[in-house]
Amino acid sequence: MLRIAYVNGRYLPHADAAVHVEDRGYQLGDGVYEVCEVSGGRLVDERRHMARLDRSLRELRIRWPMAPVALGVVVREVVRRNRVVDGLVYLQVTRGVAPRDHAFPAAAVSPALVVTARSIPIASRDARAAKGVAVITLPDNRWARVDIKTIALLPNVLAKQTAHEAGAFEAWFVDGEGFVTEGASTNAWIVTTDGRLVTRPADTGILRGVTRTVLLEVATGEGLRLEERPFSVAEALGAREAFLTSATTAVTPIVRIDGKNVGDGRPGPLAIRLRPALRAAAEIAPAWSSPPSQPNI
Amino acid sequence: MLRIAYVNGRYLPHADAAVHVEDRGYQLGDGVYEVCEVSGGRLVDERRHMARLDRSLRELRIRWPMAPVALGVVVREVVRRNRVVDGLVYLQVTRGVAPRDHAFPAAAVSPALVVTARSIPIASRDARAAKGVAVITLPDNRWARVDIKTIALLPNVLAKQTAHEAGAFEAWFVDGEGFVTEGASTNAWIVTTDGRLVTRPADTGILRGVTRTVLLEVATGEGLRLEERPFSVAEALGAREAFLTSATTAVTPIVRIDGKNVGDGRPGPLAIRLRPALRAAAEIAPAWSSPPSQPNI
Repeated sequence: MLRIAYVNGRYLPHADAAVHVEDRGYQLGDGVYEVCEVSGGRLVDERRHMARLDRSLRELRIRWPMAPVALGVVVREVVRRNRVVDGLVYLQVTRGVAPRDHAFPAAAVSPALVVTARSIPIASRDARAAKGVAVITLPDNRWARVDIKTIALLPNVLAKQTAHEAGAFEAWFVDGEGFVTEGASTNAWIVTTDGRLVTRPADTGILRGVTRTVLLEVATGEGLRLEERPFSVAEALGAREAFLTSATTAVTPIVRIDGKNVGDGRPGPLAIRLRPALRAAAEIAPAWSSPPSQPNI
Repeated sequence: MLRIAYVNGRYLPHADAAVHVEDRGYQLGDGVYEVCEVSGGRLVDERRHMARLDRSLRELRIRWPMAPVALGVVVREVVRRNRVVDGLVYLQVTRGVAPRDHAFPAAAVSPALVVTARSIPIASRDARAAKGVAVITLPDNRWARVDIKTIALLPNVLAKQTAHEAGAFEAWFVDGEGFVTEGASTNAWIVTTDGRLVTRPADTGILRGVTRTVLLEVATGEGLRLEERPFSVAEALGAREAFLTSATTAVTPIVRIDGKNVGDGRPGPLAIRLRPALRAAAEIAPAWSSPPSQPNI
């Protein structure tokens, strides 16, 4: 099947999907992105992803590349043309193409939009969750505004690579006070020995993950004891469970941190239970051909 | 005249100079760059720029996209085809094109190389230096490895834009202890009331500017009293002079910091004198058609 990407107004064969070398995303990291899960051909939590995109764009003062409702149509069309049933759709908005200069270009410069989609087998993701994953910890060396979902991801790239070379799935960033901030592409959670669910508050130290937000709602709905507060690596190592969340990993149990077992070294029961509960709570948007609901923006 | 860019093996009309949307530079900020001044059609301090490129690539474990000597040929050819006499040449190397994933792609993925060049009138740069520029100060919110010349420049973009909106040319980043690190795209210098030249050591807090290095040699050669140490905004405001350096600004006097005059609010005599001295000390590489000297790498 021919893969298709949307690039600035055109649906192109993936191999021909190109942007200008002076796109500010390429030369300056001047852009934002979203990754939205596709489940059964439908968008998961689209409304929240679009609301977060709106916040990212506002924080960087980048205009919407098109009306939100039109973007919903494009995203669906990319999912449809790529016949993605289960996988993800990726969208990136940059400040556009202009002669290289750090300062913003003239207001007339249009933002650039790229949308791609790809299938990811459910089985492989579920198998990973069933086995649990390992994480390592690294000093958080990122910039101060990681609350904005920008494409300036080099620190995350290096951290993830370090994790993979250590045989781990993810790297947890640790702040100067010894508290875990988040993973290189996931949010971090623990379950204390007395059953409280703990995750760091979504201040400027972490990205406010959409999956994180939904899971907080699930936990509240189930009456779980919930604490939004920082936790240390030592507390995580002494915890009953640990797990990570993101749009494409959902709830995935963590069984080792820096080579040491969490709990008994097997996926924790709460994480196992929350994984399907999260899915049940997600907002599944109308299918391919339907118009999207307008996000609250 | 038709502008030409070099993109991964081909010389293309500027309008057609494009990279794939899954170039890791576009989606992950996973690349490095250099800006080299062109003077009289020749490359300024090419050897040092290539040595720094080598360091940046090593730090990120990106391979050279071609042999250094071949890159020198490409850079010259881009300068020549664009008929740049006075201006700059820009080169960017990214980790290449691969399906989006934070971790490094397979070793077989080739790094991507883009080279562009453009003219910048000498007169406009000299006029700016003659008048002097204003800077503002901002908290340094960048990541911990600004010593690597990466394309993940979003914090610099936002700082430079803030400066421009304040009527200033540059933003100085200030660390948590109140010391100036560097500008968004320049290094920072002051001249104390007793005539000592002060600039921050090139630790991980700043980029080791090529122009900074050459100027340190000039200052040493002239027997100036030199101190590589951090200085605060207050010290800069009380200094006799302040100035900034970069490949494209050379030595440019600073006459205002956060709206307050430096010295008498006019370009300082040492900065004025060092500007041509810097040019005299620069290594001017052979002209367009000559092969480059091999950098020490």
